[in-house]
Amino acid sequence: MTDPQEAIDAEAAVRTTKRDSRIEERTAGERQDGIPFIGAGPGDPGLLTVTGKQLVEAADLVVHAGSLVNSELLEEYCADAEQVSSIGKDLEELIPLMRDAYENGRTVVRLHSGDPAIYGAALEQMDALEHEGVPTYLVPGVTSAFAASATLRTQLTLNGVSNHVAFTRPQGKTLEPEDDHIGEFVEMGDVTTCVYLGTHAVADTMDRLLADGHDPDTPVTVVYHASWPDEDIVEGTVATIGERLEAAGYRASALVIIGAAAQKTGYERSYLYGDWANRGTNESEADD
Amino acid sequence: MTDPQEAIDAEAAVRTTKRDSRIEERTAGERQDGIPFIGAGPGDPGLLTVTGKQLVEAADLVVHAGSLVNSELLEEYCADAEQVSSIGKDLEELIPLMRDAYENGRTVVRLHSGDPAIYGAALEQMDALEHEGVPTYLVPGVTSAFAASATLRTQLTLNGVSNHVAFTRPQGKTLEPEDDHIGEFVEMGDVTTCVYLGTHAVADTMDRLLADGHDPDTPVTVVYHASWPDEDIVEGTVATIGERLEAAGYRASALVIIGAAAQKTGYERSYLYGDWANRGTNESEADD
Repeated sequence: MTDPQEAIDAEAAVRTTKRDSRIEERTAGERQDGIPFIGAGPGDPGLLTVTGKQLVEAADLVVHAGSLVNSELLEEYCADAEQVSSIGKDLEELIPLMRDAYENGRTVVRLHSGDPAIYGAALEQMDALEHEGVPTYLVPGVTSAFAASATLRTQLTLNGVSNHVAFTRPQGKTLEPEDDHIGEFVEMGDVTTCVYLGTHAVADTMDRLLADGHDPDTPVTVVYHASWPDEDIVEGTVATIGERLEAAGYRASALVIIGAAAQKTGYERSYLYGDWANRGTNESEADD
Repeated sequence: MTDPQEAIDAEAAVRTTKRDSRIEERTAGERQDGIPFIGAGPGDPGLLTVTGKQLVEAADLVVHAGSLVNSELLEEYCADAEQVSSIGKDLEELIPLMRDAYENGRTVVRLHSGDPAIYGAALEQMDALEHEGVPTYLVPGVTSAFAASATLRTQLTLNGVSNHVAFTRPQGKTLEPEDDHIGEFVEMGDVTTCVYLGTHAVADTMDRLLADGHDPDTPVTVVYHASWPDEDIVEGTVATIGERLEAAGYRASALVIIGAAAQKTGYERSYLYGDWANRGTNESEADD
């Protein structure tokens, strides 16, 4: 097997000169030849897509993201399939495992949590598999921020409160401090900032916001395991959420929402179901 | 019926003193009493969630977002139900319609495109219905940006290329110029900027980026109707995409992706399936 980073670089080099014809020929959601990389959604088995469920149900081998995927989903949809957790396996182990199963005629699916496009580390596996001659494709899913907003009975955008949404993560071993934009998103004032992969770092993140002069009363809402049976909510502000989250004991698997959208007060009805409707404008995306 | 904005303000006022017990008691994805506000996903019927499909199939009355929801989905899941488009109807018309049907014992669902949390205008309807005594809840869905990234066979975050994602919209009748943050997101350099509701405004948006000194060679990829049968892709740069999109003739229903993630070159394998795996770290969200 080719070294994974060399395989990635080789596949990337091919892309600069030759277009992958599947991009034009296939639509998102369409079944394709090869191993599907499926977004399992936030946790609840009912929040997997219809196509994702059908693919998982038909699989002989399900390679999943371990504790990041709700075991109820695996029990409900693929109890009879071989199940392998990817956690603790590097590409050098994962790629031959999936390649060999596929080449032996088994039906293989790869199950990522949420949607693979958001912090999914899916493409490196896809490129390494393609380099080995195994076709792959993506099946999108529901990201945890959408489950969290459903739990909170709100929207991440809210007319007059939040006009934009950022999906971000905090500085640490895999992100340099200068690439941490949380303060910049919060500073904009009308962005709902959704922090992924940052449960363990909430106190540090909030300390940085305070040190940079951000409003300590800015609301922060943490949703642990959105859509799981043990889903939980911890509410506070930039000043208080660190201690409250520590008291709750969550160190991973929570989404941190900075901004007022979770409070859902002070918003205004939209044009869409107001003046525009009465004007007969027939698209949400009306010309301005 | 109470005036919708008054109903919204009244519901918001209640929230400041009394917590909605359903937030703690119910998890995302769980069926609840009342009218579900369901994310229909990007278009392909297979990209609706399992729970969303079951709720739509069981409905007597489906109020949907008109041409924003793929008619194939309606035909496949609720051909026998009464179907009403919300387009061209204001809250004053929509709310009594849903309320009366619900109070008459009919099974009502409200189908929004994508996920309702992203530019969904769902909460105003929910608050107005709740104020009329009709319970409501949210069922999350797949947003079009995830279908677009699946079509492009990429991720919106990519190690060494893009660390963050912004869901945003451009200035216009419903957004003041000072609340247009597209330039700020692009300026950060490692953000994949997904522009919703901005197909008609791409040329103006790009002209502003150029006037503000942004790199004209920054890649811009437009995915029209991601996951629909007529899905299409228009590629270019900040300098070229305006003309190309005009030539293609799309004025709505496309997602505009600014940034290099769509090119998926020059990225690096992640720690997750590399050093962390070998260290035995068993969460993607390892302590830093």
